[in-house]
Amino acid sequence: MPVYTVSNVQNLRICVVMVGLPARGKSFISQKIVRYLSWLSIKSKCFNVGNYRRQGAPRPSAEFFDASNEEAYKIREHAVTQAVIDMMNWFADEQGVVAILDATNSTRQRRNWVLKLCRENSIEPMFLESWCDDNDLILRNIADVKTSSPDYKGVDPDVATADFLERIANYEQVYQALDEAQDRDLTFVRLINIAQQVIINKVETYLESRIVFYVMNLHIKPRYIWLSRHGESIYNLEKKIGGDSSLSPRGLQYAKKLPELVRESAGNRDLTVWTSTLIRTQETAQDLPYKQLQWKALDELDAGVCDGMTYEEIEETFPEDFKARDEDKYEYRYRGGESYRDVVIRLEPIIMELERQENILIITHQAVLRCIYAYFMNVPQEESPWMSIPLHTLIRLEPRAYATHVTKIKADIPAVSTYKGKGTSQVGESDSNQRKSAHALIDSDSKK
Amino acid sequence: MPVYTVSNVQNLRICVVMVGLPARGKSFISQKIVRYLSWLSIKSKCFNVGNYRRQGAPRPSAEFFDASNEEAYKIREHAVTQAVIDMMNWFADEQGVVAILDATNSTRQRRNWVLKLCRENSIEPMFLESWCDDNDLILRNIADVKTSSPDYKGVDPDVATADFLERIANYEQVYQALDEAQDRDLTFVRLINIAQQVIINKVETYLESRIVFYVMNLHIKPRYIWLSRHGESIYNLEKKIGGDSSLSPRGLQYAKKLPELVRESAGNRDLTVWTSTLIRTQETAQDLPYKQLQWKALDELDAGVCDGMTYEEIEETFPEDFKARDEDKYEYRYRGGESYRDVVIRLEPIIMELERQENILIITHQAVLRCIYAYFMNVPQEESPWMSIPLHTLIRLEPRAYATHVTKIKADIPAVSTYKGKGTSQVGESDSNQRKSAHALIDSDSKK
Repeated sequence: MPVYTVSNVQNLRICVVMVGLPARGKSFISQKIVRYLSWLSIKSKCFNVGNYRRQGAPRPSAEFFDASNEEAYKIREHAVTQAVIDMMNWFADEQGVVAILDATNSTRQRRNWVLKLCRENSIEPMFLESWCDDNDLILRNIADVKTSSPDYKGVDPDVATADFLERIANYEQVYQALDEAQDRDLTFVRLINIAQQVIINKVETYLESRIVFYVMNLHIKPRYIWLSRHGESIYNLEKKIGGDSSLSPRGLQYAKKLPELVRESAGNRDLTVWTSTLIRTQETAQDLPYKQLQWKALDELDAGVCDGMTYEEIEETFPEDFKARDEDKYEYRYRGGESYRDVVIRLEPIIMELERQENILIITHQAVLRCIYAYFMNVPQEESPWMSIPLHTLIRLEPRAYATHVTKIKADIPAVSTYKGKGTSQVGESDSNQRKSAHALIDSDSKK
Repeated sequence: MPVYTVSNVQNLRICVVMVGLPARGKSFISQKIVRYLSWLSIKSKCFNVGNYRRQGAPRPSAEFFDASNEEAYKIREHAVTQAVIDMMNWFADEQGVVAILDATNSTRQRRNWVLKLCRENSIEPMFLESWCDDNDLILRNIADVKTSSPDYKGVDPDVATADFLERIANYEQVYQALDEAQDRDLTFVRLINIAQQVIINKVETYLESRIVFYVMNLHIKPRYIWLSRHGESIYNLEKKIGGDSSLSPRGLQYAKKLPELVRESAGNRDLTVWTSTLIRTQETAQDLPYKQLQWKALDELDAGVCDGMTYEEIEETFPEDFKARDEDKYEYRYRGGESYRDVVIRLEPIIMELERQENILIITHQAVLRCIYAYFMNVPQEESPWMSIPLHTLIRLEPRAYATHVTKIKADIPAVSTYKGKGTSQVGESDSNQRKSAHALIDSDSKK
């Protein structure tokens, strides 16, 4: 029997039907929702109609989007039909839970068509409109689109902008916004100028309400998130896991150096430091001249009965558990302790709060940092527990519209490696599985 | 340094300014918010202007609320002024965090006055309007008011209803709803017909967004929540805490009897069973013919290094901890384990989900059940960890507009008492502190 947490308690299948003119951040929102739900182990997928349309019309000009262009209309009809067919197959064949239909869905007629198909297939439709009349926001989005959309690859930026504005104008002629009175029987959310105003209608299921709450918390102000493990601890030196030990002399050196590293990376930006409740993260933060908050949710994965043991001792004392953990590290729950999945669930409010906040520096622990990093970098569950995140390294994340940029800053203070590869009880060794991971590179130069 | 969780991360002070005609559930919402935040240790208080007004006009008739009645208007002005003065003093003197100003606040002029006062005192105002045009809902609320409001104590129900409708009509003449365009610079939430539609404007802080999410999840459909501890376990017999043991023979008897107890209490209602991930709750639920879900968040308070010990062993091994726990049981965190506060934080999503759901039976553990019960019954933190909740007893909660009704159903299957009073390591003994608690009565007849 599965263990329920922030999850699909009601066994529903949901189609989030995006609604909005071009350059309203629909794809940004769609991708964020998929990333968030996937991280929570809720099977979700985005069906981007633009990608289907590009198969028939790779790089159309604005007139293609004129509602009176009949030939183009057929290609666009075909694209949306294909996307919806694939979506329905995905629900049926792959037990999908949340699909996002990422398209303008700009007319009531189109939306009614999607609605009918959803209802016929026992899928709950939730319309999510991004509506925007803030010109600065729109222009910023257009700048993003013209540099990132395959439609404008290699096109002169000014030409692309002019064409794109014309495309938007073509959509505007037929666009019908969701209407509080006329659409009162639908489940819908209207985001007005990002989340300056939000209108929520008939959102009745748990999972839908989670999605809505998440979307409400998104912002697009530029900011950084820094991640660091605590400095090397006494337990690290002794190869023990868990516990609540102090920093080693080298760990204290890292704590001393950290303010300088942060200042170099952050400049004059103000930021807030989040630590766990454990001594080693607080000692690491002790010289940082910023506001500090402690979060219990940032405490290290609880190793239960294995807390305070070395991997060798665990292998000796609980050989079957040791093997079981290697075989499915994400799901394995230490006796009396936690699994990676458990950690993800308790980190959910942290992620929500991170989405709301601006500059944050998080000083935490190996497993917790893996989970947070996995969220921002979309690392799959099979890989995230095996990522190597070295000590004495400051990681800077810069969330952007379609990806998160990573910078790694090494403190040049030696530390033991606490990385344990699959199938060994030795720390500090990498193994071939780990090397294969695309995400292993964040410490490729720190291995011994 | 405090440990942050679902909390007031930004150190704000918030005034939730209720807006709405009479009989729109404003007091219901206000009380729910205060109960929820208090349970999360966020200091909050409701200032009900009606209570202040009753000091000058204990039982006025409808004409008192006619906007042209100048003398009455003065009394009403005085009441709201007094309420606001008290509220400001509470913020200043008692470090209040969230105040609810529970009044109609029906005109823009009145709201601007509150807004100005808040801003002058560095308090963030959030307007929360309950707007309703669903006559059934209004009539149900009127029925509640005329039976519960001190204004109509002892008045014939029909007379009370007629007078109350007239009072509403008087308010309607001057009522100005919050307006998406005109009030766009305010932080506000409009709840339309409970939460059928919700409009959220400029909600920017974490704590405000938590309040909004909570309010969105409230419903008023009648339903029951049943709570039960697992049946007596092997560890219970051995006086050990924690662990993951199976049920004792008497515990299994309770599991066998439970379907009958539930059926007698629930009738033909459908319900869902929630258990923890521990064996003893699942064994207790094994004969229940309903859908079952397991929640990690319902696992027992983690006793860390003391897991599997008896209280006597704990007292012997960690005498200082044993004493510290008795002195502040809510805050005491077992070494490597949890405090009651930690349990409340991880139960927060459970409470949120309980607010959304209809009939639910929760089979869980002593400390967890205390926390859930404390939420519904508004038990203060000093008392909740000392409540005695006996084994082999089904508790039925019936949430109503202004209180939760409790029914206790004993299974008549003997079990050990696991209750440990303050200052003793013996279980099964009550002490004088505990007897004093108003909430101890839920098992007053089960003590040995």
